[in-house]
Amino acid sequence: MKILIINGPNLNLLGVREKSIYGDQSFETYLEELRQRFPDIVLDYFQSNVEGEIINKLHEVGFNIDGIILNAGGYTHTSVAIADAVKAIKVPVVEVHISNILAREEYRHISFISPNAFGSIMGFGLDSYRLAIESLLV
Amino acid sequence: MKILIINGPNLNLLGVREKSIYGDQSFETYLEELRQRFPDIVLDYFQSNVEGEIINKLHEVGFNIDGIILNAGGYTHTSVAIADAVKAIKVPVVEVHISNILAREEYRHISFISPNAFGSIMGFGLDSYRLAIESLLV
Amino acid sequence: MKILIINGPNLNLLGVREKSIYGDQSFETYLEELRQRFPDIVLDYFQSNVEGEIINKLHEVGFNIDGIILNAGGYTHTSVAIADAVKAIKVPVVEVHISNILAREEYRHISFISPNAFGSIMGFGLDSYRLAIESLLV
Amino acid sequence: MKILIINGPNLNLLGVREKSIYGDQSFETYLEELRQRFPDIVLDYFQSNVEGEIINKLHEVGFNIDGIILNAGGYTHTSVAIADAVKAIKVPVVEVHISNILAREEYRHISFISPNAFGSIMGFGLDSYRLAIESLLV
Amino acid sequence: MKILIINGPNLNLLGVREKSIYGDQSFETYLEELRQRFPDIVLDYFQSNVEGEIINKLHEVGFNIDGIILNAGGYTHTSVAIADAVKAIKVPVVEVHISNILAREEYRHISFISPNAFGSIMGFGLDSYRLAIESLLV
Amino acid sequence: MKILIINGPNLNLLGVREKSIYGDQSFETYLEELRQRFPDIVLDYFQSNVEGEIINKLHEVGFNIDGIILNAGGYTHTSVAIADAVKAIKVPVVEVHISNILAREEYRHISFISPNAFGSIMGFGLDSYRLAIESLLV
Amino acid sequence: MKILIINGPNLNLLGVREKSIYGDQSFETYLEELRQRFPDIVLDYFQSNVEGEIINKLHEVGFNIDGIILNAGGYTHTSVAIADAVKAIKVPVVEVHISNILAREEYRHISFISPNAFGSIMGFGLDSYRLAIESLLV
Amino acid sequence: MKILIINGPNLNLLGVREKSIYGDQSFETYLEELRQRFPDIVLDYFQSNVEGEIINKLHEVGFNIDGIILNAGGYTHTSVAIADAVKAIKVPVVEVHISNILAREEYRHISFISPNAFGSIMGFGLDSYRLAIESLLV
Amino acid sequence: MKILIINGPNLNLLGVREKSIYGDQSFETYLEELRQRFPDIVLDYFQSNVEGEIINKLHEVGFNIDGIILNAGGYTHTSVAIADAVKAIKVPVVEVHISNILAREEYRHISFISPNAFGSIMGFGLDSYRLAIESLLV
Amino acid sequence: MKILIINGPNLNLLGVREKSIYGDQSFETYLEELRQRFPDIVLDYFQSNVEGEIINKLHEVGFNIDGIILNAGGYTHTSVAIADAVKAIKVPVVEVHISNILAREEYRHISFISPNAFGSIMGFGLDSYRLAIESLLV
Amino acid sequence: MKILIINGPNLNLLGVREKSIYGDQSFETYLEELRQRFPDIVLDYFQSNVEGEIINKLHEVGFNIDGIILNAGGYTHTSVAIADAVKAIKVPVVEVHISNILAREEYRHISFISPNAFGSIMGFGLDSYRLAIESLLV
Amino acid sequence: MKILIINGPNLNLLGVREKSIYGDQSFETYLEELRQRFPDIVLDYFQSNVEGEIINKLHEVGFNIDGIILNAGGYTHTSVAIADAVKAIKVPVVEVHISNILAREEYRHISFISPNAFGSIMGFGLDSYRLAIESLLV
Repeated sequence: MKILIINGPNLNLLGVREKSIYGDQSFETYLEELRQRFPDIVLDYFQSNVEGEIINKLHEVGFNIDGIILNAGGYTHTSVAIADAVKAIKVPVVEVHISNILAREEYRHISFISPNAFGSIMGFGLDSYRLAIESLLV
Repeated sequence: MKILIINGPNLNLLGVREKSIYGDQSFETYLEELRQRFPDIVLDYFQSNVEGEIINKLHEVGFNIDGIILNAGGYTHTSVAIADAVKAIKVPVVEVHISNILAREEYRHISFISPNAFGSIMGFGLDSYRLAIESLLV
Repeated sequence: MKILIINGPNLNLLGVREKSIYGDQSFETYLEELRQRFPDIVLDYFQSNVEGEIINKLHEVGFNIDGIILNAGGYTHTSVAIADAVKAIKVPVVEVHISNILAREEYRHISFISPNAFGSIMGFGLDSYRLAIESLLV
Repeated sequence: MKILIINGPNLNLLGVREKSIYGDQSFETYLEELRQRFPDIVLDYFQSNVEGEIINKLHEVGFNIDGIILNAGGYTHTSVAIADAVKAIKVPVVEVHISNILAREEYRHISFISPNAFGSIMGFGLDSYRLAIESLLV
Repeated sequence: MKILIINGPNLNLLGVREKSIYGDQSFETYLEELRQRFPDIVLDYFQSNVEGEIINKLHEVGFNIDGIILNAGGYTHTSVAIADAVKAIKVPVVEVHISNILAREEYRHISFISPNAFGSIMGFGLDSYRLAIESLLV
Repeated sequence: MKILIINGPNLNLLGVREKSIYGDQSFETYLEELRQRFPDIVLDYFQSNVEGEIINKLHEVGFNIDGIILNAGGYTHTSVAIADAVKAIKVPVVEVHISNILAREEYRHISFISPNAFGSIMGFGLDSYRLAIESLLV
Repeated sequence: MKILIINGPNLNLLGVREKSIYGDQSFETYLEELRQRFPDIVLDYFQSNVEGEIINKLHEVGFNIDGIILNAGGYTHTSVAIADAVKAIKVPVVEVHISNILAREEYRHISFISPNAFGSIMGFGLDSYRLAIESLLV
Repeated sequence: MKILIINGPNLNLLGVREKSIYGDQSFETYLEELRQRFPDIVLDYFQSNVEGEIINKLHEVGFNIDGIILNAGGYTHTSVAIADAVKAIKVPVVEVHISNILAREEYRHISFISPNAFGSIMGFGLDSYRLAIESLLV
Repeated sequence: MKILIINGPNLNLLGVREKSIYGDQSFETYLEELRQRFPDIVLDYFQSNVEGEIINKLHEVGFNIDGIILNAGGYTHTSVAIADAVKAIKVPVVEVHISNILAREEYRHISFISPNAFGSIMGFGLDSYRLAIESLLV
Repeated sequence: MKILIINGPNLNLLGVREKSIYGDQSFETYLEELRQRFPDIVLDYFQSNVEGEIINKLHEVGFNIDGIILNAGGYTHTSVAIADAVKAIKVPVVEVHISNILAREEYRHISFISPNAFGSIMGFGLDSYRLAIESLLV
Repeated sequence: MKILIINGPNLNLLGVREKSIYGDQSFETYLEELRQRFPDIVLDYFQSNVEGEIINKLHEVGFNIDGIILNAGGYTHTSVAIADAVKAIKVPVVEVHISNILAREEYRHISFISPNAFGSIMGFGLDSYRLAIESLLV
Repeated sequence: MKILIINGPNLNLLGVREKSIYGDQSFETYLEELRQRFPDIVLDYFQSNVEGEIINKLHEVGFNIDGIILNAGGYTHTSVAIADAVKAIKVPVVEVHISNILAREEYRHISFISPNAFGSIMGFGLDSYRLAIESLLV
């Protein structure tokens, strides 16, 4: 089974940026933990700060792997284009957020991605990613 | 470990009501599956169509079990009182929804409960409940 | 033929409350007139001020009588949960209002129930109930 | 007893237009049924696609018959002028709609006519007209 | 000097309709008073309940008299088309209202006509028309 | 003189819930202080988390005691039905809030109850209740 | 092949009205150019300032020619009734605008007609009509 | 007969400020013209840039002269306090504006004063003041 | 103990202005009653129609007396500046209103002052001031 | 004559993505048809999912070819930056959309590009591109 | 070179009021530092809590010095009248704010003054004033 | 001391694009002037039309230089992602705009960047950049 995790803008700064909200662990370290927890899953990882590159990646893998886990970061709230890409592909896309977007600024309450997602998980910190993997293991 | 699942209004009709949205399995049958999957967890269940009884139940267990999984149904979008109860208690409350509330009518896009929840999981059908249990097993 | 009339909050005060809007006849007296007018119909009556009990009643009769006439009172404008119950059941539900809700405060202009109702009748005073019965006698 | 039914724009296409919403019976055929059902009532009929002609007709009969049944079609949602005419005359005006306007596009949720109407009936298909006649037979 | 007064929908009922708002004098009687007060002005009068006929009249006289006084009634608040006509012609158009539209229902607070008018006068009862004539006598 | 204090949802947790906002005194303890301060007043108390039971209680006492002090908690901001009950009864209802609802989340800025209340007192902590009693002692 | 061009309110003033926006050519002159450019097409023309007459014309030809080109002028932004007529008929309706409605006043940004049109063309001056004919020549 | 003209903020700069909107005549010069035109009227004048001083003046003369002409300038759109003063006094207050406030920035479209005014006149340049005097000479 | 009552615009007209809302007693008379009721309190009084003078007074006494009772009248709903002054000073400020601002025009539903006040009391007529004094006597 | 077609995000999936909306033809195949239809035009093509690359391309060709046809896909509704680029360059830009954006989700009803475009064509399927070429061949 | 700094309401409390937002330095002390830093500039200072006095001062100096630096405090967000004064005068007005108004309450996000200002500087603490002087030294 | 100036989309066209708003000087020429004015500062420059590349650059320098001056152009109004990057880094970011964004289209009135910026400077033309450098030289 093959799953790709896609992280959007600023998530490369995890462990550095606003630790009170996002925690102090880097995503790479956490990714290792995930791989050890799910040894039977090929767990790929892609991060980009460029909206269009996220779309490119969704197109590239969107018809030939088993699941995509997408944390689109700030683009969650503004990108019709990524949402369209999620809708256009065949692979199920699970939306994740580290923090609870509904408990933050009002402009973060909207997600263009949710309506097209296989499901949404948010607010569990980095553990949201583990739950997303679980959701694909039905 | 002890977890209570609270289902709000109309969820007693699962398997009967609008099957294209909610599926055709009754919650009781599904609950059995969950209990078998998590044999080490004491999994209690409470359903009520009365807003205030949900609050009463949250108060009753809210300081002495390990986790609450709450699908407040239609009250999700209108009940400040349930949201206040979630905030007032100590036990972590995981919000779940069977369908993707952001892909339905606009008045379902708002959740008063999310800002006070431990985390939110939605859109995975009944599997949302399993993921909620997983989220409490950190 | 069996029809249930469900009255929501404060309608037990009919004949007592704000007579300039609602008239000075109690609902019980009026109900007798209705029963005499429609001798072939079994006309049941249920009133509750509790949102959840209205949902319980809708579930209870919602698959086995011929029609429901619902005046949800103040819950008309705020209850997603009752509206979901109306949608979930099989028996046709006719929405009635004594006064013209569109001629009153702005927050009364919205009805969550209408989109799921068999039809809506409002503004004819108590006579709205008679017309609702007529509407089920096609 | 004399009642005038006024139909607004596009209702001359009943039976031709969007049958899934409006049914496949022409209004003229239905009118005959109504006349047979209510043999003691003089039931006149007027249809126009012109907003101002509807106002002219309301003025013409608005002080000297027993009731008006008005389905203003698309003008329901936009015409302050027709609503003013309904308010200006003395004959009671019952508002009817074939479909449930609250279950359709958002711009159809507003009725300028309702606040001035004797009462409103909607969503019962063509049967809404029969109920409107019933409402005038108190 | 030649001035045309154009009255829109329902203003033919002046003296009959809602006397507490509009007074009990018919416009024809008032018009005679105006003509006697301004003997040197040719004061024409046109009333229609049809939006398009008001536009036709504006086009007809809009390039060859000295002034137009327009009370568009209910169309004031909804008609982009009449407002476009007022903008398209050369003759100055003075907007009048008998009542104070800003002290009535909120949907009457908007005037599409005002931005294109020579000036606006409202709230003085029928005397608004006299003032409009005065405004053209600079 | 007989006064009933009605407390709505979650107010049974006073002294336990969010102490930084609501203080750490239970309402029962405070009630004793009030009774000692006003020995000549019969001071009854009712608390419920169920919207409809609050309505039932308002109906029960609403025509035969001297005053009602109502803190409807979260229902303040959402309940048309309780507001209707306050309007329907004869006994004056003083609205109280422990915290300043206008200094909290935006959805708490609206009170359906205020327009029907005898008066409103908020933001003085538990002392709001004492002032409400004072307001009834004119 | 037979196509009808329908022009709405004030478009009879083309070449006279606001030349900086609409140009200085009359529509009749332009129509001749179009007929010469498309000699194989029977190109009929109808203009009215009356909303209801536009509806009448749509009904009259809406089941028996090959295409309709509709510039509804100011009614574009306000007429639910014309939009309903466009939806009710069978002949494809191409919406055209001379100016770019999205670059003008905010109330012109809405078109009720677009959702029901075969397609929309705007902003090319009179050339929009030529493109509309091209669009029907697939 | 005694009339007071009250001018609000920045109107002391008439003839100096933004001449394309307000013209190049000072109010004092214009006032002389008015006095000559209406020799039988005692025409007083007051200008202040201070909101509260305008209120003070309204109170001072508001029970003992024949009419007030008020151009509240920028306070028109923001001052509940001046509007309350207009409502509190007995002397009729005619609202005037030099420019057409509905053809300018959106925040100028609202007038708190209009609902309480005897009538409103706007858009005629300085001539609005003459018309206001005429309106008081019934 | 020293308390200052500050009254804002138009409250100098109490007993004269709109008696159905504000009663027919002047504030000075009422103030005497208050002083007799609370003989141990030095009760000062300040009224101004000028927003900035109210701010000046708040600054002057805001660090050296025991309490301020503020009825900012119409400035309640529009003045960020007075609200900032209330926040800037140390003396507790109790907000009072004679009428129930939530039962009047919509623009009176907002209070900039409430979020910074010690507490708010409204709707008890002049008795609101007595309750405000009580609130400072803890 | 040289024209560049620029396609934005997800349009590289044409023929693959959501065929019920976008059809099942790839853009490359269609492009060949266009080139054969317009043999005298040099028809270049650029597609990118990256907002900034679309801007780069607009800058690159925006001063030295004869026309640009832009379908900005999802960026149409969110990109001020692309709209600014369209405004900044000299070559006319024709906006095209395959589907009718006004008949889809509300967030697609806004186009930042339209106000700066030479003209807009939408809803004709792939044929919208042919019409755009026609529009540049005046 | 002559520059006037105008400070609006509550800025006289600088160094006293809410130090976490505004710092603990009084403006007078800071002003001395500025004068020493810019010895060639005549730096005048004016502070008032009265909206109209700020307008008076803008008028007084607005045609005869070299620059005005305006921090209108709370009036920034509510005063059309001050904004009109800024527009009416000839001397360039630089808008300054000590804190970042866009990072505070939503009602502080609007500035009526900005559109008429020479430029705006905000968020640099008291240093905003120094930068404003720099901006006038081009 | 090392400062990086980051310019966003379309600012590479300065001196070419819309000269009436942005002036006719290219940024490179202006940059030379700045370097000569501040010889002790290492002044780097980066321009990109790609949102994600701006984020990449902010990350790259955001922990190791002395200041960043950011004109995000059109992304100012739409990019949550850039705003998040500004918040995530340690180096102070001064927001600049050449024109006064509050005096242009309404969608330019919002800045996602401001709340996270060290301060904001706008409307001074290219001189805004000089002032931004000054602001970092405290």
